[in-house]
Amino acid sequence: MKFSGIINGGASGWSQNDGPQHDIVISSRVRLARNIQKFPFPGWAKKADRVATLEKTKPAVEALPEMDDAFSENLQDLNVLEKQVLVERHLISREHAAKGVGSAVVMNRQQTLSIMLNEEDHLRMQAIRSGFRLRDAFALLDKADSALEKALDFAYDPRLGYLTACPTNVGTGMRASAMLHLPALVLKEEINKVIQAVNKIGLAVRGLYGEGTEAMGNLFQISNQTTLGQKEEDIIGNLSKVVEKIISHERNAREVLLEQKPATLFDQIGRAYGILTNAHSMTGKEALNLLSLIRLGVDLGFFPTECLQAVDELCTEVQQAHLQKAGAQKLGAEERDLLRADVVREKLKRCPSPDLAKVKARRAANENGSGESAADDAGK
Amino acid sequence: MKFSGIINGGASGWSQNDGPQHDIVISSRVRLARNIQKFPFPGWAKKADRVATLEKTKPAVEALPEMDDAFSENLQDLNVLEKQVLVERHLISREHAAKGVGSAVVMNRQQTLSIMLNEEDHLRMQAIRSGFRLRDAFALLDKADSALEKALDFAYDPRLGYLTACPTNVGTGMRASAMLHLPALVLKEEINKVIQAVNKIGLAVRGLYGEGTEAMGNLFQISNQTTLGQKEEDIIGNLSKVVEKIISHERNAREVLLEQKPATLFDQIGRAYGILTNAHSMTGKEALNLLSLIRLGVDLGFFPTECLQAVDELCTEVQQAHLQKAGAQKLGAEERDLLRADVVREKLKRCPSPDLAKVKARRAANENGSGESAADDAGK
Repeated sequence: MKFSGIINGGASGWSQNDGPQHDIVISSRVRLARNIQKFPFPGWAKKADRVATLEKTKPAVEALPEMDDAFSENLQDLNVLEKQVLVERHLISREHAAKGVGSAVVMNRQQTLSIMLNEEDHLRMQAIRSGFRLRDAFALLDKADSALEKALDFAYDPRLGYLTACPTNVGTGMRASAMLHLPALVLKEEINKVIQAVNKIGLAVRGLYGEGTEAMGNLFQISNQTTLGQKEEDIIGNLSKVVEKIISHERNAREVLLEQKPATLFDQIGRAYGILTNAHSMTGKEALNLLSLIRLGVDLGFFPTECLQAVDELCTEVQQAHLQKAGAQKLGAEERDLLRADVVREKLKRCPSPDLAKVKARRAANENGSGESAADDAGK
Repeated sequence: MKFSGIINGGASGWSQNDGPQHDIVISSRVRLARNIQKFPFPGWAKKADRVATLEKTKPAVEALPEMDDAFSENLQDLNVLEKQVLVERHLISREHAAKGVGSAVVMNRQQTLSIMLNEEDHLRMQAIRSGFRLRDAFALLDKADSALEKALDFAYDPRLGYLTACPTNVGTGMRASAMLHLPALVLKEEINKVIQAVNKIGLAVRGLYGEGTEAMGNLFQISNQTTLGQKEEDIIGNLSKVVEKIISHERNAREVLLEQKPATLFDQIGRAYGILTNAHSMTGKEALNLLSLIRLGVDLGFFPTECLQAVDELCTEVQQAHLQKAGAQKLGAEERDLLRADVVREKLKRCPSPDLAKVKARRAANENGSGESAADDAGK
């Protein structure tokens, strides 16, 4: 399949808003780092070495049954914009986008399995699923990994485990992460407490694009730091337990806000909607931050569930490279801000202004009668 | 007529959005300070003196033909809220609202002529008209003044003119002012230059409620400082010339913004509309500042002219005492902010979201064809 097929085909398969607890867990991701025996790590390899590694790894990856009708491309054949689109969809890393000859990417049609060749390691394999499905993501990845292990000689030490370019990845070579949407913890100013607690137990909290990136749109990526001395299943198990706790904190914060400060919630979400549907210039950061509040509004039943798709599509579309693709020509920052506001206004026409009277009535009915919580009732 | 008749009768007669250049000149106001011979000025007078003065002045004022079916009340008979409503309508001064026994206010049914008794002077007479009509306001006031001069012995010195409690008012006892809406000069950051120039030629620039008050809603009151050694007609003439210049600066700034930064204008006005129609908590200052941008939007043809009435009514209704009257009970600041947002959202339902495509098309048509400027076309 050609690149244009991937890009113009709309949202990635992993961003379909399904899976358990998808209102808070945007996506679950697992990646494995693998290297081939006797070939130098990409960072040390000369171009000829990298090309030689690629000649071994790429056919093996393309031969995976999951990679039937896959997108497979050498990085020198993609332009800057195309690479940036893949970064914005979390399908390749920012580091990989900077690579050229001797590096490649292969991904399945659903964009749930993506394998970078000669990134920091010979193979960086990633499975990504929507919702809270770390185990599903791992299963998908594990199957591909086992198949590749038969075809390729992975560098493996019986005492240390899989060998990797960076010592922090030695062992399982695994990083598992969940992207969480935590607007209520941010609004209640409890997020820093949560981040500190998570850091203390050896997990990392990062922004939208992983290491060293800023948190935008109230999105936080929680991942394991340790790869050595733990089984893959234990890493996933530990991370899952922590994620479950954070989810419950976030749900609790939402309920408390609704109970104690409904006016603040209505005001913040209402203003976000008002600005998104009426602004004519908007930065990417502002767009993501405001869209986060609309997503919260959908979760709380202020907007119909149909709005969620618009919000999700926009979270990708407002990003720089996706905008650039939408506008036919190369755009300056100011022009991008104008186009972004146009794209947002147009798409949110699908999403009607929140009717608070209805929301209040429904909440009152729930409290008096059925015992359903507002969260259960969200978007009905 | 009873107070409730004045207050519940809706907007004041002077805020009807007519009169020349009413898109920029909200109102024209003239006031005269007068005192009665041989009675001490109110600031020096004992309560008995003030009551004695009032017994002379009040019947004379009530006997004016303009005061047929007037509202006439001693200040001790008005509660704090009622006085505050009169302040917010610019019908009495903040200082007068603090007065009690021995002070009164008499105003005509249209609320265009208001006479404060025992404010700083025995009589403070004010005429106020919508639009740029300083001469009309003066004519209305002059007629009442001449009639009163026959009935009362005004303190007058042949060399100095009318004597007043404060030396800054001696002479004509007149202050003429125009309330100007100057959003484009503010957006272009040229307002300070204008204020400095105006100050240099001896005129004062003040905020919404006169001396010592902050500029809100991009409203600026321009008034004469000198009362001594100038004829009334000259004061009005000089002020009018300056106001005309400022009006032309503001019109020019609007055209330049439309030509050079239409996106900024669309964005600012769009955001103001989005927030006003979707917020659920709002301070009075924010409301006035955002409503100012909607008013500009109407003037530029982004909104239908019908919206102007809603904006004008809101500019009064969002103020503290008017809100308090709308809400049945006494409200805290937080409750007022909630009620204010409700009042704004409800009223702006009349005012549809601006259709920029239409605005752009109309501007293009004007440029190519008829030669009309966008300003000429405003709100048609």
